[in-house]
Amino acid sequence: MTLNRQWLLKARPHGMIGPDNFEYTETPIPQIGDGEVLVKNQYLSFDPTQRNWMVDRPGYLPPVGIGEVMRAGSVAEVVESKHPDFKPGEQVQTTGCWQDFAVVAPGQGPMGVNKLPPGVSPEMMLSILGITGMTAYFGLLDHGQPEDGETVLVSGAAGATGSVVGQIAKLKGCRTIGIAGGEKKCAWLTDVAKFDGAIDYKSEDVSERIGALCPNKWDIFFDNVAGPILEAALNHLNLYSRVVMCGGIANYNNIEPVPGPNNLMNIVTNRGRMQGFIILDYLPRAMEAIEALVGWVSAGDIVYEVDIQEGFDNIPSTLQRLYTGENFGKQLLRI
Amino acid sequence: MTLNRQWLLKARPHGMIGPDNFEYTETPIPQIGDGEVLVKNQYLSFDPTQRNWMVDRPGYLPPVGIGEVMRAGSVAEVVESKHPDFKPGEQVQTTGCWQDFAVVAPGQGPMGVNKLPPGVSPEMMLSILGITGMTAYFGLLDHGQPEDGETVLVSGAAGATGSVVGQIAKLKGCRTIGIAGGEKKCAWLTDVAKFDGAIDYKSEDVSERIGALCPNKWDIFFDNVAGPILEAALNHLNLYSRVVMCGGIANYNNIEPVPGPNNLMNIVTNRGRMQGFIILDYLPRAMEAIEALVGWVSAGDIVYEVDIQEGFDNIPSTLQRLYTGENFGKQLLRI
Repeated sequence: MTLNRQWLLKARPHGMIGPDNFEYTETPIPQIGDGEVLVKNQYLSFDPTQRNWMVDRPGYLPPVGIGEVMRAGSVAEVVESKHPDFKPGEQVQTTGCWQDFAVVAPGQGPMGVNKLPPGVSPEMMLSILGITGMTAYFGLLDHGQPEDGETVLVSGAAGATGSVVGQIAKLKGCRTIGIAGGEKKCAWLTDVAKFDGAIDYKSEDVSERIGALCPNKWDIFFDNVAGPILEAALNHLNLYSRVVMCGGIANYNNIEPVPGPNNLMNIVTNRGRMQGFIILDYLPRAMEAIEALVGWVSAGDIVYEVDIQEGFDNIPSTLQRLYTGENFGKQLLRI
Repeated sequence: MTLNRQWLLKARPHGMIGPDNFEYTETPIPQIGDGEVLVKNQYLSFDPTQRNWMVDRPGYLPPVGIGEVMRAGSVAEVVESKHPDFKPGEQVQTTGCWQDFAVVAPGQGPMGVNKLPPGVSPEMMLSILGITGMTAYFGLLDHGQPEDGETVLVSGAAGATGSVVGQIAKLKGCRTIGIAGGEKKCAWLTDVAKFDGAIDYKSEDVSERIGALCPNKWDIFFDNVAGPILEAALNHLNLYSRVVMCGGIANYNNIEPVPGPNNLMNIVTNRGRMQGFIILDYLPRAMEAIEALVGWVSAGDIVYEVDIQEGFDNIPSTLQRLYTGENFGKQLLRI
């Protein structure tokens, strides 16, 4: 009899997450009820915010409980269906979590369950058309509100969200500067993703380089990182500039809360705005983003990278790659 | 022959400002040219932002130069006029600076020069109808966007801006909680200015008290203070809340930059917004605020306090009162 392999949350993280936070188990394949669908995960999505779901504090989603299957987005194949809209063999995108088999249903869970549009691969669905691509699209356009000729600075710029932010900004007529870790990522930003400039935070003085690469300062800072890079950025904001606060991966694995930027007053004197947002609020508008992104990708105007790891056993260690910066492009795992 | 007494900026501040930052001098009364007006200052306005003008770094106004007369708003009497709109004996509001006599002209300087409306006293012009009252009006209404039933938290709540913020918020149907220093100010907030609650940051745990007094969290935080009070506030923000970033008096006299709040990520998870603004941008809309504020004051819906010091010699020490919190209400000085 086939069992359902699962990775459960075993212990809440204290500092950098690691394999000890998770526990492997095997359970019977679940039964479905009316209106439900049994799916078998094929690809898992890895997202920095998963670290936040592991912590027992109020967030935009309830924390994963100790002993519960770790939450994750996935692309899966329908195995059995008691819902009229789904048939075995169809590929869907859902919150399948770290397990082989999941019971899902439309309207349930943070993402519900949605069929992959024709011609869309799992890799595409979980990256450029998934949460990270939509985060870039809505964060930049709704909150950054780029105007032709403005300068857009992006942290985590080689990541799945940041790289798309910069490329959309470029399409909107902006000058784009990306901050990333390491020569390889920086070279990719300027050579492949066509950013106007790249800053390697591992080897360069970020504030000084922002000053050099943004002679007119920046109008939009799309921040995936927070921490010292946010502080460096706030030395160079233009009048009426916007900080799109997307995430703070620099701090997610800290044990103690880390002080914020010491120059927030620059926001006041420059009449700036810092706007936080959560992509789940935008899911009702998902088709708007998907249509635009498919168009840009088809036209060759936006490129994206996926970093695909393999194997059920490697799920916990793959999550860790996000926080060490080992991943190059959207982190996925093929089960 | 009468001379023009002046207080010049002698040394840029390092830590808490004090009398040593200024130097007394006497100079000839200046001559006016065509289109100019000679005025004699009667009342000086003291504002926390003056500390920022003394520092040589980019700001929303050029810094006061060493050896220049210290910049300040004032109400003054026209002594001589070569401008058709002004006659000797008229009272005007302008940027008269720390001196007896100033040469001013319409459209010149950060505030230009404007006659006092009929029936408006100098005290009223420099407080509720001046920069501090307008800051409250536009900051709260344009950026806070209060809705009936929301909770509005105000820091520096007994100050000239904060006290007006809370009272306008109340008129808009909000629950209002003020943070101030000391029993006297807190009692004034609830007894006189009719705040729904007050927190004494000198004797109470601010975060805990915000939690207790804002059972539904806060929707708007009008922040005049920054520093640890901002951090405490960010523990209790509601979904889609707004921080109106007005000032950071807690930090103005620090020698080294002070770390910011360690919980900015709460802005992200709660889809919050932090908005900086500078009141000078709103001067073209001044009449809108003045008409509304005059109406509310006349109806007894808004009360305000002024703290009037006396004498030219006491000008530097009066500025210091703002940062020690000694002032009670809008700080003015009658020359």
